[in-house]
Formats: sequence, structure tokens, C-alpha cells
Amino acid sequence: MTTIETEPTTVARQGRQAAYRTPGYSLPGPLYASDEAYETDLAAVFGRSWLFVATEPEIAEPGDYVTIAVGRQSVVLIRDDDMSVRAFHNVCRHRGSRLLDACSGSTGNIVCPYHQWTYDTSGRLLHAESSGNTFDRSKFSLRPVHVRSVAGLLFISLADESPADFDEYASIVTPYLAPHRLAEAKVATQIDIVEDGNWKLVMENNRECTHCGGHPELIRSLFPVYGYQPEDISPRLGPAFERYRSAHQEFTATCKELGLLWEPVEQLDTRPTGFRIEREPLDMAGESFTVDGRRASTRLLADFPTARLGRLSMHVQPNAWFHALADHAVTFSVLPIAPDKTLLRTTWLVHKDAVEGHDYDLDTLTTVWRQTNDQDRTFVARAHRGVSDPAYEPGPYLAPEYQVDAFCSWYTDRLEEYRQR
Amino acid sequence: MTTIETEPTTVARQGRQAAYRTPGYSLPGPLYASDEAYETDLAAVFGRSWLFVATEPEIAEPGDYVTIAVGRQSVVLIRDDDMSVRAFHNVCRHRGSRLLDACSGSTGNIVCPYHQWTYDTSGRLLHAESSGNTFDRSKFSLRPVHVRSVAGLLFISLADESPADFDEYASIVTPYLAPHRLAEAKVATQIDIVEDGNWKLVMENNRECTHCGGHPELIRSLFPVYGYQPEDISPRLGPAFERYRSAHQEFTATCKELGLLWEPVEQLDTRPTGFRIEREPLDMAGESFTVDGRRASTRLLADFPTARLGRLSMHVQPNAWFHALADHAVTFSVLPIAPDKTLLRTTWLVHKDAVEGHDYDLDTLTTVWRQTNDQDRTFVARAHRGVSDPAYEPGPYLAPEYQVDAFCSWYTDRLEEYRQR
Amino acid sequence: MTTIETEPTTVARQGRQAAYRTPGYSLPGPLYASDEAYETDLAAVFGRSWLFVATEPEIAEPGDYVTIAVGRQSVVLIRDDDMSVRAFHNVCRHRGSRLLDACSGSTGNIVCPYHQWTYDTSGRLLHAESSGNTFDRSKFSLRPVHVRSVAGLLFISLADESPADFDEYASIVTPYLAPHRLAEAKVATQIDIVEDGNWKLVMENNRECTHCGGHPELIRSLFPVYGYQPEDISPRLGPAFERYRSAHQEFTATCKELGLLWEPVEQLDTRPTGFRIEREPLDMAGESFTVDGRRASTRLLADFPTARLGRLSMHVQPNAWFHALADHAVTFSVLPIAPDKTLLRTTWLVHKDAVEGHDYDLDTLTTVWRQTNDQDRTFVARAHRGVSDPAYEPGPYLAPEYQVDAFCSWYTDRLEEYRQR
Repeated sequence: MTTIETEPTTVARQGRQAAYRTPGYSLPGPLYASDEAYETDLAAVFGRSWLFVATEPEIAEPGDYVTIAVGRQSVVLIRDDDMSVRAFHNVCRHRGSRLLDACSGSTGNIVCPYHQWTYDTSGRLLHAESSGNTFDRSKFSLRPVHVRSVAGLLFISLADESPADFDEYASIVTPYLAPHRLAEAKVATQIDIVEDGNWKLVMENNRECTHCGGHPELIRSLFPVYGYQPEDISPRLGPAFERYRSAHQEFTATCKELGLLWEPVEQLDTRPTGFRIEREPLDMAGESFTVDGRRASTRLLADFPTARLGRLSMHVQPNAWFHALADHAVTFSVLPIAPDKTLLRTTWLVHKDAVEGHDYDLDTLTTVWRQTNDQDRTFVARAHRGVSDPAYEPGPYLAPEYQVDAFCSWYTDRLEEYRQR
Repeated sequence: MTTIETEPTTVARQGRQAAYRTPGYSLPGPLYASDEAYETDLAAVFGRSWLFVATEPEIAEPGDYVTIAVGRQSVVLIRDDDMSVRAFHNVCRHRGSRLLDACSGSTGNIVCPYHQWTYDTSGRLLHAESSGNTFDRSKFSLRPVHVRSVAGLLFISLADESPADFDEYASIVTPYLAPHRLAEAKVATQIDIVEDGNWKLVMENNRECTHCGGHPELIRSLFPVYGYQPEDISPRLGPAFERYRSAHQEFTATCKELGLLWEPVEQLDTRPTGFRIEREPLDMAGESFTVDGRRASTRLLADFPTARLGRLSMHVQPNAWFHALADHAVTFSVLPIAPDKTLLRTTWLVHKDAVEGHDYDLDTLTTVWRQTNDQDRTFVARAHRGVSDPAYEPGPYLAPEYQVDAFCSWYTDRLEEYRQR
Repeated sequence: MTTIETEPTTVARQGRQAAYRTPGYSLPGPLYASDEAYETDLAAVFGRSWLFVATEPEIAEPGDYVTIAVGRQSVVLIRDDDMSVRAFHNVCRHRGSRLLDACSGSTGNIVCPYHQWTYDTSGRLLHAESSGNTFDRSKFSLRPVHVRSVAGLLFISLADESPADFDEYASIVTPYLAPHRLAEAKVATQIDIVEDGNWKLVMENNRECTHCGGHPELIRSLFPVYGYQPEDISPRLGPAFERYRSAHQEFTATCKELGLLWEPVEQLDTRPTGFRIEREPLDMAGESFTVDGRRASTRLLADFPTARLGRLSMHVQPNAWFHALADHAVTFSVLPIAPDKTLLRTTWLVHKDAVEGHDYDLDTLTTVWRQTNDQDRTFVARAHRGVSDPAYEPGPYLAPEYQVDAFCSWYTDRLEEYRQR
């Protein structure tokens, strides 16, 4: 496993962590459930980190846009005429009206519906009626937001100075992602659900597979030993672990042959843009997230000689995870709505020429993650109610939950960094 | 234009203003959207100003009442047996129960439904069962609220000492209003809508016509040049401005002939009871707010020799505006419900003998303002979402928005006055 | 009347009371309606007192459980294999998930649905997968909650140290309750309603009958002179009072003959577990809470020689009241949900062998209190709106409301006790 330590795990750091939680234990209840922690999270985490919010195929043509809500903020991502992606605060510079109401659409200029202030797709104010001779339009461009594409995945940063380690992150993961050609894919469908729990519980839930018994559809293709070391495998998981080991051997041979990267890079709590990436085999037919493991789209994402490429899985903090397969990719974006409400947006990407009904069936493509998301929604809601209970005391993360523990360390580092700003 | 300066616009005042906002710019976001500002507004503005809440025709007979919610307060306005209008807090003096639940009704005495404490229409406690011999009923009258009628328009003040300038305000506007005989009119209909925005955004929206392109029904009869100086007229508005100028000439001649006041009086930010009144011509047939400008009621409000009397428009801060025409009048009362929820109550008055279906058709009478209110509701909701965005920065009011600017000056004067109390 | 003074009503105490309210007057508005008072109440009252939450018949068999929400807390009451009743916080010791979602059910072990941590009915952690060799399960038992049964009525205390006077309370009331054999009864039905008012207004409402004119169904069997002294009886209540006096004479003779306790014990504001108990006759046929006063169940709760046993009524602070009759019992549990939302849970108990449709009709059994609860819900909602009005001023409790006054004294003693903790 390649690990680049950008921040040493020192005694000093452990001391800082201990100010927020007992090391190795879940967070104190107020950090999950209080209004104060929510406001802090919006500033310290969502106001400072790089956030995954959309994919390039969602705004393929000039003028195509999406609007993204991050807490009380709304951001427009729009394809400019030069095909670059721009991002702006969705707020008119006149009297503050929301500019674009829809979640997505296409427009020539951005015209405020209130008093018709008119901006071009690069954010410049073109026109403001009755503004007089002395009015300097150049002072009223839309306020820009940092935006970056990583192999077709769009990240924004609401910070004045966005985290500097993003370039390095991008340079590490791009070679893994590039073969799947996500920037050229098309959106098969996108589904939003609102979970009744704090955003951190949604992220924690995704960082371990010790609850995967609750995902009967998912674990037909996904080996439920994710995060486990051999010594943590219980008898219940023995057979799956054996199948995983056997599949992995064949799998790495395929990867080598095709020149696909597979080795894990894990930097979950050692940098601002905490992440993990790894390519792993799938169970059953080994091709896709379906009930029999066979591909869901006959048209693969790229010119792969086989569909048995497993899952290229990436986790990026604070708010996203991804699975790129041979035949499709699924992206997950987590956005806070309230202390106990979180949007989970799931997007399924297929080859741009794949035809629904011919190359893929939408229900087959989406079943596993629709079911899994819905099951996780129940887990998250129950967890939120529990950690909101004054009788809740943080409990221990066990060995196969080490990535949840790392997420919490990363999170409290962000709090500490913000406190010291 | 007659302007009575009751407070000099001095350098000192500009300094006070600057503590709250950049002069000439919209208010900072927290003043629109925060819970704190809302609580302050309830105390500093709605707890101290004269508020327009109802019309005399709504409580025409002895015992007729309306209940009005101002924030968490409820006030009963009731017609006493001597035909005077009384106002009380809608709270029993025993254990605090709400007395009257309905928005309007008619009653002999006011009897608390909980334990039957019984008050007469002047607020005196007549009866409290099992209260014993030493109980002094005279100490438990309903708590009175100041109430005043201005030409049939009912204003209340929740302050212990209500603003002293109201008499002067009333003496200025009564000669304008009196010919329309509103106190003797009848209510054709009353419609409440709840807007998803702060009350100040509802008021600001009404103080300019630079968004009137969004009101296609309204601007058939209303010249969309309200608030504009000739030099601010854009080519788009040129034709409408020419028609306005031409109509105005004929109009003032009519007013003079009929002895109707028309000249503007504008004291928006120079007194506690900030207001503006002016009579102006209407477009098309020039008679009423209808799609062809013709009267909506064949029975005029008074014995006018012509229906081409335009609109007598009055704006009173903090919470009302009015249009009195030859054939009907429309009143608008704005009452805060929450930081982002505002009640807009619109009341259409016609001659008391006008018969629905014969003299007027309710749909024709109300179409223009129902549509206009609904369009404004959309503008206000979008504005509220925008100014709630942490990325919102106050922007400049342009020349034709000078009355919005004046409203903001008046508002921040109220905040300052409250701060210094 | 037997009164055991456990705390002297001294001048010093009156001084403490006066810090919270004018003696004899209702509480200040913020104590009823503010978020701050609600949080204080959860800690100072519901976090410290004994709370009535369920009856033994609800969890008759081993593994039967109910979950009870007290503010943001959830508590499981479960019948252990040794037939004792246990209570635990409904929170997994791993990562805090709610364990049991349902309001009631039956289970062998308690298995967390998230990661299958498994506890037995005594709260011990039996199993945690992948927890390794060094993990000490004994440190992760479910957190216990104090629980006590008083003649079949289940009380919990969320305090570390529960109020010590409960034993004495139990010893006083058990001889009154025991003959009704509630622990052996069965639940005919249980109905929850949510009232739109503070929990204290729900309790106050129950402590006086001066509003009983609003309960036409109830006062057919319940004499509406509850809480009245002869000198407070108004002419309206004269006939009912005469019937009450006459019925009482016969009634005490019956009680003496059957060895049933009837004399009031009233310790409402002189101890932490404030309470009142008394057996009183009923009107009409004198048997039960029905429209004609006749028994609702032909199968009596115990082997009583007559059904004319009136009502054994008990009130326990902070949150319950009870009526045990010859043929059935009704329990009422009041639990706060929000400053202005309160759960009222009403449970009807009948003999365990009584057969619905044969021995009793559910509609007849429940009509009076369903109607009465619904009427009280209206009173409470109206009272809450009124006391939330800034214009509300506390008013005087009259003589027949002395128990409401005592409730307020008890309540402010709890606040003072908490302040001095």
C-alpha cells in the first residue's frame, strides 16, 4: 500500500485529537447532533474543503448548468462557451436575488428574473437597466467559486484560499480514473435522497463493511470483507474471504496485463483532501454491481478487452465516494441540509453512446445502489436518533472500522485547524 | 411635491445610517434573514409603530370583531356598542388563554372558553365564577391596544406610548382619502397569502416598479414608470412614459375640477410614521385595475361624475399600501410570521350597495392584484433565499429604487431609536 | 385529610417561590413557552423525578418490551426472564444506534440492527463481532435506568440518584391501589394524542374542575365539584354538590364495609414525589366513567361485591394521573416532546379474562376519556398560544384551583433545587 504522509502522526497530534474525542471512539453526541457543530461544520469543513458536487457529463454543452446547495449557499456550475467549467455564487449582485432556481438547465446569459441584471457565462455583468452613467459594471461580476475537474469529476471549494494539496491528490488519482473516461460518459440517471441524519454519519456508514449483512443485494457482487484484516475475519465471513483472496489473484494479473492501477493509496487522515483509492475484484461474475455480478450495460465505458475489472473505488473527504466499473460508474455526493438532514445524490454514468432499453436497462443498472442507499438511510436515521440521546456515550471502533476512525481523526483535525485560523 | 421635513437629513444622521448599511445599498443579509433581527424587528418596529391591520367595513356592526396576529401577539379589534372601535390583547386575564380563535366573527360579550371569564366589548371583566368576595374585577380588564381610524382604515399601536406624529399623518392624508368614503364601503373579498420571505423584502418589492416587467396584468392599467425620473427612462419604457405624461395633463385638470387632491406628499424616511401619498392617472381606459382599464364595479365608491380618477396610492411604513380608485379600493397589510414568512392580507372594498354578480364580478375585480401578488410572492421568495446566502453582498439601489432606499433609511432609524431607548 | 409534611412551608420557601412567580398566580410566560425553560424542565424535572411511563400488563411475558421517549431520550422497559422489569437506555454501546425502534414488541436478546451487537434482557453484552481478544465485553452493558413498580404502575427515574422519598410514596398509595389488582390486569387499549401545548399546561388542566363545563360527557359520572370547598360552590353547581354530598355518605359506608381506603392524602408541593390520592363517589349509577355511570366491563377488576366503588383517583408529579374503578382503570402519562408539544398516553386496563365484545365494548369503555382528552387538548392549545403572547400577564388562581397553585409551587421548588445543585 502506497502511503504518502503529508502530516506526521505525532504525539502532539494525538493530544489535539483528544481534545475532541477519546482516540479510537466515536465522536461525542453534540458533534453529531448540535446546531452549533452544524454551523461549525459548514464553516470549518464545507467552507474550506474541496467538495465533489457534479460530473462533467451533467453540463456537457455550453450554457448547460447545475445549481448545488451547500448549507444555505447555492452555487452555479456552468459550461462556458470555451468549454471550460465555471462556478459562481447563485446570487445577483444587485439586491441578492437567487438567479437560477432549477437544479439544472441550459441558458445563454444568466438573467436575474427580478430586475433583469444580465451576466454572461463567465460571470461578467453585461446589462443593468437605469443604472446611470457613473455605474461601473465591472465591479458587479458574479462572485466566482473555485472549481476543478478530476478525470470528469467536478469539485468546488468555497474557500478564499482552497486547500493546496488538491493538485497532488488529483495527480495521484487521475491515472486510476482516466481509463474509465468519465468526462466523456453520459448520465444514465441521478437520484437524490434525503437522509434523516448528520452528514458525518452518512460518511461513517460508507467507511466500513461490518454492517454489510444489512445489504443483501450489494453483497452478492461486493465482497463483504472490505476493511478487514485476515485476523478479523469471523467464521461467518470465512467463505467470502476465501473467494475474495482467490479472485484477487486473478484480478491483479488482469490489471497488470491491461496496465490498470489497482494498489490502494490511503491518505484518509494525513492531509486536507483526505482520500482512499483502490481497485478490487467483485464477486460472482465479477463485472458489475448487479445481483449476478454481470455487466449492467453491454456498452462498456471504454474499449476494455474484458468487463471483469472489478470496482475502482475512491473515497474523498469530506463528502464523496465513487465506484468506476467496466460498464458504468456511480458517484455519491453528500451535502448537509440541516444538523439531522443530509442530501445523498447518486449519479449513474454509462458510455455516451449506450442506449437505454438496448444497451442497458435502467432498473437493472440502479437496483443494487438504490436498495443499498435505502438500507443505509435506515441505519443512518437510527444512528442519528441514538447519538442525539443524552444517554449516548461514544463507543469503540473495532479493527475493521479503522477507516471510520480515520475519518473522525481527519474531521477533528479540520475543527482544530479552523479553531486556530 | 410637498415635503414636510420633521427630521433634518444631517451628517449625523448619515453617520448613524452607516452603522447599519452602506448608504444607497441593500441591507446586510443578517438584517433580512436572522432570527435575531426578526426578534428586534418585532420589538423595534412592530412593537412601536402604527400598523394598518383592518378596515372599518370589516367590523361594521356592534360586536363584530377581527383578530390580528402580529408576531406571537394576537389583537382583537371589536365594534363597541357605542359604534367606536376598541382593540384589546386577545389574552384572558385569568390564566392567559386565547379568547377568540376565529379570524373574524360577531359576539355579545367576550367569554373565555376555558373558565368562562366574561368581558364586555369595552374590555371590562363582568364575571369570574368562584372568585370570592375580595376579588377586584376592575383590576382584570382586558389589556387595551391603541387603535385609530383614518378615513375608515384601522391602525393599531402595540406601544405603551404610540408615535406622536400619527395625528399629523392622519391630518395630511385624510383629505385625500375622504372622498372615497372607505368607512362606509363593504368588503367584496379578502385574500391572505403567506410569502416565503422577510417582511422587509415584501415592503421593498412594493416600493419600486423596476421589476414591473414581471407583472404583465398590472402594467396594462398601471404605468410602469412609477418612481422614475425622466432621465432614468430607458428606451423600453419610452412609449409608456409618453402616455403617462399625456394622461397626467388631462388627469390633473379633472382633479382640479372635482376638488380632488393629487399632488404627492412624500415623507418616507423623515418621521416615525413614514408615508407617501399621490393620486396618479391609470393607463388604457384609466378607470381601474383591470386588464382593459375599465371599472370593475359599475357602482362607484362615491357620487363621482367620472370613473377616470386614476389611483390614489398611499404607502405607510412599516406595513401597508393602498389604492383607492373611483369604483373600488384595495388595501394591503403586511404582517410578520417568522423571519422568512410574511402574511400579506389584501382586501377589496366596493360601495356598500354594490351587488356581486350585478354591479361587479369578483373575479374581474380581483384578477390583477391576485396575479400581481402571486408574482411578487415568487420574487420575494427568491430574494429571501439569495440574501440568506452567506455569499450575498449588499448591492446598489438604482435611481428608480430611491423609495426602497428611503424605506431602508427609515428602518435603520427605527433600529437606532430602539437601541437608544 | 392525612397530610404528611416532609418540607415545612416556611417564610424562606415563600421567598424562593417569589423568585419564579407571584404567589398564587400562574407562571410567567417564558416558563411555559421558551426553549430555555423546556431544556431546564428536561433536566430539572424529567431528568430527576420518578416518571410514570407504563403498566406491568403492557410487558406481561419475558422478552416483552416497550420503548418510552422522554425528550430526546429513549428508554426500554423489558420483562426479564426472572419476571422482573428492567429498564435501559435505548442506545447501543458501540456507535450509539437506537436498538429498538418499535413502541412495543417482544424479543429474545436485544440485537442492534446496525452491527449486531447483542445484549441479553438483563443488559449484558453477549456478542460483538470482530472485537478482538482484548475487548472487555463487561464494560459495554446497556446503561441501566431506575425502574419501580407500584401496584403494577411502572415508574422510571433518569437520575443517577433517584428521589429518595419514592419508597414512602409507594408505601402510602399501595394500600389504596392494591385491591384493584392492576399488575394482573390486561390492556384493553392505549391511545396516544399529541397536545399543542407545554407539558405543564397539560398537568395544570388536570388539576382543577372549574373548566369541567367543557366536558359534557365526563360530568355525567364525575361530580364537577372536584377541588371546591362548600363556600366556593356557585348556584350553577349547587345541585351537583348536593348530589355529591349525599352520594359521599353512602360511599364511605361502603368503603368501610369493604375495607377500602378512601380518605385523601394530599402532598402536592411538600415533597419531590408530589402526589394526591383519594377515593370518591361517582354520579348517576356510580359505577364507572360512562354516560349513564354504569360499568363498562361486566367483568370487574377484582372480586368486588359491588361495582359502586367510585373512582380511586391519584395524581403524581410531574407527569401522571390515574383513575381506578371497580370495572376498569385508566392511566395517563404526560411526556414532553417540545416546548409546545406534549404526548398524552392513555391506557385502559380491564380484568385479564375480560373478553372484548362479550364483557366490554371498547367504544363504550373509552368514550368518556377520549372525548375529555380531546376537549382538554383544545383548552391546552389555546392556553399555550395565550401564554406565548408577549401581552400575557400571569393571573390569579382562584380557590377551586388551589391544586394548580400547588403544582406550580412544586414545580418552582424543582427549579430552585436544580439551580442549587
